[in-house]
Amino acid sequence: MANAALSDQVRRALTDGHLGHLATVNPDGSPQASVVWIGLDGDDIVVGHLMGGRKVINIARDPRVTLTVEAEGTNPVGMRNHLHVTGTARLVPGGAPELLQRLAEVYVGPGVRFPPFDDPPPGHVIRITPERIGGVGPWVD
Amino acid sequence: MANAALSDQVRRALTDGHLGHLATVNPDGSPQASVVWIGLDGDDIVVGHLMGGRKVINIARDPRVTLTVEAEGTNPVGMRNHLHVTGTARLVPGGAPELLQRLAEVYVGPGVRFPPFDDPPPGHVIRITPERIGGVGPWVD
Repeated sequence: MANAALSDQVRRALTDGHLGHLATVNPDGSPQASVVWIGLDGDDIVVGHLMGGRKVINIARDPRVTLTVEAEGTNPVGMRNHLHVTGTARLVPGGAPELLQRLAEVYVGPGVRFPPFDDPPPGHVIRITPERIGGVGPWVD
Repeated sequence: MANAALSDQVRRALTDGHLGHLATVNPDGSPQASVVWIGLDGDDIVVGHLMGGRKVINIARDPRVTLTVEAEGTNPVGMRNHLHVTGTARLVPGGAPELLQRLAEVYVGPGVRFPPFDDPPPGHVIRITPERIGGVGPWVD
């Protein structure tokens, strides 16, 4: 599937401090979800993960993910805007502390130190290439 | 699996107007997610759906769901509180307009009419029985 182009509105909604709800699938076929800090690197959505965890293991096995993100504003009948991103994820070893430090400035506040301890493990960066953008908001026709 | 007891704090977090991010699994094994209004009926989380839709079809085939809900407050390192509910869903025909009217008073505002048209279809109510409650917040040890 072709990658989705990210409009300026989508880029803002993905970087203004709203949380990402990242869904993957477990080995037994059940859904798995995590609430994560998100950022952009080029046209990829990036998520930092210090430790191995369920979503990292799931993505290594099956890279198909869905991400939902609440956004400012509502549609005419009062449903809150949100982004619905379908995409493919890949795991890049290392770089999680640096990414989390950058995202902490957005999600916690300027000047915060994150992770709040010395010598964090390098972890993984999950890079999500968006293939389809939907939801409710100005990014949907 | 035994049903999870819902503490007063969890009940409040599920009924104070935060959106639910409901994850199911598609027939091809990929994850599917929807942003939905949620309510409680007894110890079940309820979601109204006027039309057939992907999540209704998915739940009819595989009732395993995950629901994530943002909540007020943060933990000591500044991560926002949220509920992570693992559960089993079942579809109950009918009742969607009445449930959506009740939830619209929470999510849109008092006195709003929803759905905003005459003679809505009866739809389905998705009833989710929580089996495990996690996330970040006072509901996690």
